[in-house]
Amino acid sequence: MSGDVHKQPLKIGLAGLGTVGVGVLKTLRDNRAEISRRAGRDIIVTHVSARTRGQDRGIDISNLEWLDDVVGLADADVDVVVELIGGSDGPALVLANTTLGAGKSFVTANKALIAHHGKALASAAEASGVALLFEAAVAGGIPVLKALGDGLAANKITSVKGILNGTCNYILSVMDSQGAQFDDVLIDAQRLGYAEADPSFDIDGVDAAHKLAILASMAFGTQIDFAAISTDGIRAVSPTDLDFARELGYALKLIGDARLSDAGLEQSVSPTLVPLSHPLAGVEDSFNAAVFEGEPVGRVVLEGRGAGEGPTASAVVADLVDIARGRTGPAFGMPVVELKAVKAVPPKQLNARFYVRLAVKDEIGVAAQIASAVRDASISMDSLIQRGGAAGGEVTFVLTTHMCSQHAIDTLTATLSALPVVNAAPIVMRIQDENDR
Amino acid sequence: MSGDVHKQPLKIGLAGLGTVGVGVLKTLRDNRAEISRRAGRDIIVTHVSARTRGQDRGIDISNLEWLDDVVGLADADVDVVVELIGGSDGPALVLANTTLGAGKSFVTANKALIAHHGKALASAAEASGVALLFEAAVAGGIPVLKALGDGLAANKITSVKGILNGTCNYILSVMDSQGAQFDDVLIDAQRLGYAEADPSFDIDGVDAAHKLAILASMAFGTQIDFAAISTDGIRAVSPTDLDFARELGYALKLIGDARLSDAGLEQSVSPTLVPLSHPLAGVEDSFNAAVFEGEPVGRVVLEGRGAGEGPTASAVVADLVDIARGRTGPAFGMPVVELKAVKAVPPKQLNARFYVRLAVKDEIGVAAQIASAVRDASISMDSLIQRGGAAGGEVTFVLTTHMCSQHAIDTLTATLSALPVVNAAPIVMRIQDENDR
Repeated sequence: MSGDVHKQPLKIGLAGLGTVGVGVLKTLRDNRAEISRRAGRDIIVTHVSARTRGQDRGIDISNLEWLDDVVGLADADVDVVVELIGGSDGPALVLANTTLGAGKSFVTANKALIAHHGKALASAAEASGVALLFEAAVAGGIPVLKALGDGLAANKITSVKGILNGTCNYILSVMDSQGAQFDDVLIDAQRLGYAEADPSFDIDGVDAAHKLAILASMAFGTQIDFAAISTDGIRAVSPTDLDFARELGYALKLIGDARLSDAGLEQSVSPTLVPLSHPLAGVEDSFNAAVFEGEPVGRVVLEGRGAGEGPTASAVVADLVDIARGRTGPAFGMPVVELKAVKAVPPKQLNARFYVRLAVKDEIGVAAQIASAVRDASISMDSLIQRGGAAGGEVTFVLTTHMCSQHAIDTLTATLSALPVVNAAPIVMRIQDENDR
Repeated sequence: MSGDVHKQPLKIGLAGLGTVGVGVLKTLRDNRAEISRRAGRDIIVTHVSARTRGQDRGIDISNLEWLDDVVGLADADVDVVVELIGGSDGPALVLANTTLGAGKSFVTANKALIAHHGKALASAAEASGVALLFEAAVAGGIPVLKALGDGLAANKITSVKGILNGTCNYILSVMDSQGAQFDDVLIDAQRLGYAEADPSFDIDGVDAAHKLAILASMAFGTQIDFAAISTDGIRAVSPTDLDFARELGYALKLIGDARLSDAGLEQSVSPTLVPLSHPLAGVEDSFNAAVFEGEPVGRVVLEGRGAGEGPTASAVVADLVDIARGRTGPAFGMPVVELKAVKAVPPKQLNARFYVRLAVKDEIGVAAQIASAVRDASISMDSLIQRGGAAGGEVTFVLTTHMCSQHAIDTLTATLSALPVVNAAPIVMRIQDENDR
């Protein structure tokens, strides 16, 4: 493009006027001078579409052209469509395809959309020679994707770990500090707006898995493989687990973990015991963080707010600044044809240390039965804690293992569950070592 | 540039074959596949110049064209010159000017050069339509400049804080963990190669100030103003201070701190008591970290290795990837003409909380004399600790203040120094509050 064309404002069509949409409008208004200085031209929203028109959103949209049909934004007189309506399919997907097909750039905060359709959409963007950007889809205001794609572009990234869901981290932080039960904290979080009415995408780890799939693709230059992620949420976590974790020298966090090795691509989201000295252990409340290990850079840690009006708007507008500057490239940091299709390591073969909590009857010989089951599963035990004395004669055992496979631990828990002295299905979590990459 | 031209390798002339220069060669060799996938073409070093030719550097340079005169790189058949020889003036500056004048891009890890001549060099790069990049100059492998210029480009950044000198952080970490004296740890650090033979740039805070000046310019969109930085190093820190800091709930770190407000631009480098709950408090050994506060993103923290072969090479090569992609912009994130000239807040007017340590004679009424001096300086005291009993009848007092100006604290320390009971000049350090931006 010539310099003159660059001086024209970048015209945006905005789909969705929830918290983030309003945040984008406010950011473009409040930081207009800063943004124009950096972008080299103005960035203005000209068209907008949302579910209901009249609603008071605390910001004047009367000067924006309103479209009832969101997909119409793709054909409007705009340079870029920003999609903030959510959902992996439906209108978001139609809008993405129509926009890219019309030769316009597409910016989204929609992790489900990218986790499921990122490769196809990236191909569509390449075919049209336009940009597909989604910094806001992962870790909100923390520029993790730009860091991987640009600042760390010289590295062979070997592992990516993160606290990628603020709702889960908030719930675990409150459970930890107040000794509260999961269900009670969830209800409070919903009342405060920190959790959705249907919280399952958050608390079952699906949202974190969407983000991990995107991060892994950007980090390793591999094709996105959301379906292969072993995903476990935080419903089963109790304050007892948080107590034991601390006693053992760990914080308990929902961790997304992706590694690329000769064995293939390992990806998991699971409640994990993180050593208190690890950078992720101190990430509290609704904050997000990511830890990258790369050669030659070593470890790089990024932390910040992973959701909410301001942080998410920050990331969306950063993508718009890139487009305004004409400084965009392929969606995943390299052309789709360069993204490697890497075999996923089957979840059963993932190796880790494990934490197992058991509620058992207070009978003679219980410890021996547990220890025998561990031995029979060929698992090497690292520690065993017995804590007695709740009413009803129930005893809690917590055992930690040395490295073993998910398969071995599944075998063990099946054996333990079948023992008459065991009262409920064992709670199993991973343990991450400080040196474990 | 047309697509075809982009497929040609990007040819690099490399000035300097010390640790970082060798790291750049190794990274381009070892990660060639990853880098080419991301850059869209190969990046190859074709020409090299260094002080001595024959030396064994653990890497084969026989296939590179050798120049005895480093400035000759600017006229060689290269697209980019990478400068890793250091120094704010002399050959580095000549090479920069000659390279940019010849219409070639210039990449450097040289913070002194950019802190002193960044604006003029950025203008020269703009005039020639080429890139001037220096990600490696600040915080080594942590992509702080790209984060500010790209990922956080939508924000009004209000403050930047950082641990920007790995040597100082290493020395303070060892002093803290071993209770060792500054001089002893410095000698060890020199023996281990963590500190230079002439360590003054590091331990007097000059290196951190160079980096802070660059960070502040990128963060605030202001003209670089190294001369205005109030700079204090760590020579006067003793293990006693580290003990008191911990007792008061703080870690003691060398902090670079820059803020932009209506009062102007505040920039300082000084030993600072950082609350143990603050992200910078847990940054140990030779790690670096930066904390940005911006609107609307909130707080963003980045941490990683700030120096050394691998991390610095990672940053240099990331700059080369940007150039190879043709995705560079103005050096400080916006054209030089857009960078604001902001009045520096005079150091005397900087406000902070302070920590003051005094060695006094063990006499009756000493505490009253100190307290009176504090009152007479119109300073509100927050706490006073007396610790007695070293041989020779010396007593240590540590007082902490509420917010006051540097001027007030200077007045106080002059008064205290003049008291006959005070044995040595008081040690003064800043205290940073958790909520202090």
